Amino acid sequence: MNVNEFRAEAHKMADRIADYYENISEYPVKSQVMPGEIIAQLPVSPPEHPESMTNIMADFERIIMPGITHWQSPAFHAFFPANSSYPSVLAEMLTAALGQQGMIWETSPAAAELEERVMEWLREMCGLPSNWTGVIQDTASASTLAALLTAREKATGFRINEEGFTSSDKLRIYCSTETHSSIEKAVKIAGFGRKNLVKIAVDQDFALIPEELEKAIMKDKNAGFLPVCVIGSIGTTGSTAVDPIEKIGKICSAYGIWFHVDAAFSGTALILPEMHHFANGLEYADSYVFNPHKWMFTNFDASAYFVRDPEMLIRTFEILPEYLKTKTRGQVNDYRDWGVALGRRFRALKLWFVIRSFGVDGIKEKLRKHISLAQWLAGKVLKSEEFELMAPVTFSLVCFRWRPGGIDDEEKLNELNQRLLNDLNASGKLYLTHTKLNGKYVLRMVSAQTYVEMEHIEAAWKLIGEMAEKINLSGIR
Amino acid sequence: MNVNEFRAEAHKMADRIADYYENISEYPVKSQVMPGEIIAQLPVSPPEHPESMTNIMADFERIIMPGITHWQSPAFHAFFPANSSYPSVLAEMLTAALGQQGMIWETSPAAAELEERVMEWLREMCGLPSNWTGVIQDTASASTLAALLTAREKATGFRINEEGFTSSDKLRIYCSTETHSSIEKAVKIAGFGRKNLVKIAVDQDFALIPEELEKAIMKDKNAGFLPVCVIGSIGTTGSTAVDPIEKIGKICSAYGIWFHVDAAFSGTALILPEMHHFANGLEYADSYVFNPHKWMFTNFDASAYFVRDPEMLIRTFEILPEYLKTKTRGQVNDYRDWGVALGRRFRALKLWFVIRSFGVDGIKEKLRKHISLAQWLAGKVLKSEEFELMAPVTFSLVCFRWRPGGIDDEEKLNELNQRLLNDLNASGKLYLTHTKLNGKYVLRMVSAQTYVEMEHIEAAWKLIGEMAEKINLSGIR
Repeated sequence: MNVNEFRAEAHKMADRIADYYENISEYPVKSQVMPGEIIAQLPVSPPEHPESMTNIMADFERIIMPGITHWQSPAFHAFFPANSSYPSVLAEMLTAALGQQGMIWETSPAAAELEERVMEWLREMCGLPSNWTGVIQDTASASTLAALLTAREKATGFRINEEGFTSSDKLRIYCSTETHSSIEKAVKIAGFGRKNLVKIAVDQDFALIPEELEKAIMKDKNAGFLPVCVIGSIGTTGSTAVDPIEKIGKICSAYGIWFHVDAAFSGTALILPEMHHFANGLEYADSYVFNPHKWMFTNFDASAYFVRDPEMLIRTFEILPEYLKTKTRGQVNDYRDWGVALGRRFRALKLWFVIRSFGVDGIKEKLRKHISLAQWLAGKVLKSEEFELMAPVTFSLVCFRWRPGGIDDEEKLNELNQRLLNDLNASGKLYLTHTKLNGKYVLRMVSAQTYVEMEHIEAAWKLIGEMAEKINLSGIR
Repeated sequence: MNVNEFRAEAHKMADRIADYYENISEYPVKSQVMPGEIIAQLPVSPPEHPESMTNIMADFERIIMPGITHWQSPAFHAFFPANSSYPSVLAEMLTAALGQQGMIWETSPAAAELEERVMEWLREMCGLPSNWTGVIQDTASASTLAALLTAREKATGFRINEEGFTSSDKLRIYCSTETHSSIEKAVKIAGFGRKNLVKIAVDQDFALIPEELEKAIMKDKNAGFLPVCVIGSIGTTGSTAVDPIEKIGKICSAYGIWFHVDAAFSGTALILPEMHHFANGLEYADSYVFNPHKWMFTNFDASAYFVRDPEMLIRTFEILPEYLKTKTRGQVNDYRDWGVALGRRFRALKLWFVIRSFGVDGIKEKLRKHISLAQWLAGKVLKSEEFELMAPVTFSLVCFRWRPGGIDDEEKLNELNQRLLNDLNASGKLYLTHTKLNGKYVLRMVSAQTYVEMEHIEAAWKLIGEMAEKINLSGIR
C-alpha cells in the first residue's frame, strides 16, 4: 500500500466508521455467536501473499462483526461503560498516525507536556486537592498496583524494592468486602499475599464501616502486623456504594497508613458541583484513581491516577539504563518512571480533544442526563409491584430485581432473575449484567453510555417488563 | 458533534493523516522544542464551552506538532522503532470506533477469538514451538512481569499469591549485565528485591556466558537460595547481542528453573528462515516475548507473549468476582486472567490487518531490506578510517563510534561522540541514540523503520561524516 492508496482507504474507513455509528442500533448489542464460531472461520495459517483491503474488510464484515459486542451502542447498560465519543475517535485516528512512544520527554515532548496539562485540567474539573499530581495509566488495575507498590515502599523505607521481603515483613492491606477485584490482584502481584488483604464489613448501603476498619487495624497492630494501605471506594462496582472517605482518611492519617481511593467509574461525577460532596475527605488520600475511559467519553484506555507525592511514585518505579539517559533528565517528566510499562502511547491527546470538544459544560450536561435517566428508572422500579430496588441509586447505576407476586424463596428469585437476564441479553436489544448483593442475584443497569437517551431507557424498561411477563406466562414460576 | 459532523471531520482527519505521511520528511525528526515550551502555550484551565474541531486542530498544528518526535519518519534511527504502517493505522481507526473492551470473551467474542488465532499465526511465522500458547500484552515490561510472577508462583506452589513472602523465601533471578532494565523493574514489583537479581557477565560479543550462569546458580543453591528464573535475550537493547539460548535452556532444565526469553525487538527476525537458527533452544523456554510493535509494522502497543503452560499463567492472575461470572467460563479464553490489567483493547485487529495486508512474504521482504541496510552501513563504518564498529551487526542495529585520527583517550572519545550525537540530532535530519558498551560511548543506528530506504541510510551516513568533519574543523578536538 502506498500513501495514495492509504489516503483512499482512510476515506473509506472514515465512511465505514460513520456508518457504524449511524446504524449502531441495528446490531444485536451483545454478540449472539457461540464459543468457537469466529475462530472456526479464520484460516489456521497466515497468508503468504499480500491481500487487498477490500478482501480484509469483506472478512471483517462477514467474520468479525457478528462477534462484536457493541459497547458503543446506547442500549449497552452492562458492567460499567467503556465509552467512546466522536472527538475521542478523531483523536485516536491522529494518535495512531503519529505513532508516538512517550516513554521519556525527549521521545515526545508534546505527549509529556500535554499529559501534564490535561491532568491538571482533570484535577481542576473534579475539584481534587490542588497539590496533587496526575499521570495517565492504562487501567485502574495498573493505578491500584502503583498505589500498593508505592505504599509498600514508603512503609518499608524502599527496602523491599532493594532487598525483597524479609522475615520481619508482616504487611497488611485493607478494603471493604465490596471493593473491586483489582485490589486482590494487585495484592498478589506485589507479594503481600491474599491472606493479608483484610476485608472489612459494609453497612446496609454497601459502604465500608469505619469502626470495623479501625478495629481490624488495632487488632493487626497488636498481633505484630504493619498496616500499609487502605483502599476506599467512591462508587463500588457492584452497586456504586460510596465509602465514608473522610472517616477512613482520618483513621489512615492517625495510624500513618497509605490511603488509596478507587473512584474508577463514579469519579467523573465529581465534575458536578451537586456531586462534589463525595470528594469530602479526599485531602487525606495519598493516591486516587478514576477512569475517563469509563464515564468521560474517552476511548479505553485512559486511567487518571493522582498522587500527593510524585517523588514517592518515581522512586518506586525508577530505572535508568544508559540508553535512556538524556540531557533533560530532572527538568521534565519522564513518565516511564511513573508506572509499570516503559513504553507509553500518546493518551493525553484524546482527553484534550474530548474536554475541548464537549467543554466542561457539555460534559456536565451529559452526566446530569445520565443521572436523571437512572433516577427515572429507579422511580419506575420503586413504583412497580413486580420489581424491587436493591441498592441506593447514587450515580447512573440501578440495581434491581424481579420479584413477581412477592415471592420469598431467595433461591427461586435468583433463578428467575438469572433467567430474565439471559432472555433479555439473548434478544440483542439491550445488554445488562448482574451482581450479587447480600447473596441476592441482582440486575445491574447502567445509563451512562455516551449517546444514551430517554428513549433507550424507556425501551429497556418496557422490554424488561415484557420479558418478565413472558416468563410468567410460560409457567416457569 | 453529531454523526454527520463526525463524518465530515473523519474525512478531514483522513486527509490530515495522509498528508502527514506524505510530508513526514519535512519535519525535524527529533522535536526541537525546549522543556516547558509546549505546556506554556496550553491554557491553565479547561474550556467551559464546547470548541470547534477547526480550533482544536489549529492548536494541534501550532502547539502540539512542534513537540512531536517523528517516530514514523524513515530518518528515525533511535532506540528501537515503535513502527506503524498504513494497514495498522487503518485498523487502529476501526478499533477506536468499535471501542471494544475485551476483558472477557463475552464482552467481545471476536476480540478473544481473533487474538487466539493471530497469536497462532505469529507462532507459526516465527517457527516457535507448536505447543506454545500466545496472548497479547501491552509491552515487554508487562510480559516480563507476567513471566517473573508465574515463575515465582510455580517455584513456591502458588504460596506467595496466597500468603505473601515468608522468611523461608530466598528467591533469586538471573540475567546478563546487558539485559533490559524492565527485568530489574519487574524484580522490584514482584517483591524479589533488586539485590536478588544476579547479573551474569557477558563475552566479547555481549552475550551471557553460560558457564558463569551455572556457577552463580550453584553458588546460590549452596548458600540456601532458590533460583527461580533466568532471563535470556535474543537481541539485547544495547547491541542486539544474542545469548546462547540452547545452553542456558539446558542449564535451566537441569536445575528446574523457569526460563524466560526476551526477544522484544529482534524476535521478529525469526520470521526469516536464514535467521531462524537464533531460535535454537527455545524448546527449553517456559515463556517468550517479542513486540510486533517494534519491528513488525504494528502500532504500539502490541507485545506478543508466549507460554508453554497457560494454566500456570491463568492461576497466577485469576480473580473471579460475581459481576464477571459468565456461562461460557471454561469454554473460552477470558484474557483478563492472562495479565495485570482487567480491561483490554482489541489489539488483535491491527495484527490481523498488518499480516494480511503485507502477507508473510511482504514482511520478510521488509526485514531483509532493513538487515541489508544495516549491513551496508556496517560496511561503510568498517571501511572508514574515522569510525569504528563497536559490536557485531546481527539484525538491523549498527553500534559504532567516531574515532578521528586514531585517538586513544577514551574520555576524549566519549566526549567527541556525545558532541557528534547532539549535533546530529539538533540538525533535525535524523535521530540516533547512544549506549555504553564496555564503558565506551557508542552511537546506535537502527535501520528498521517501516518505510526506511537506502536513500535515508546513505543520507544519514553522509551527514554523520559531514558533522564529524565540522567538529574536526571547529578545533574542538
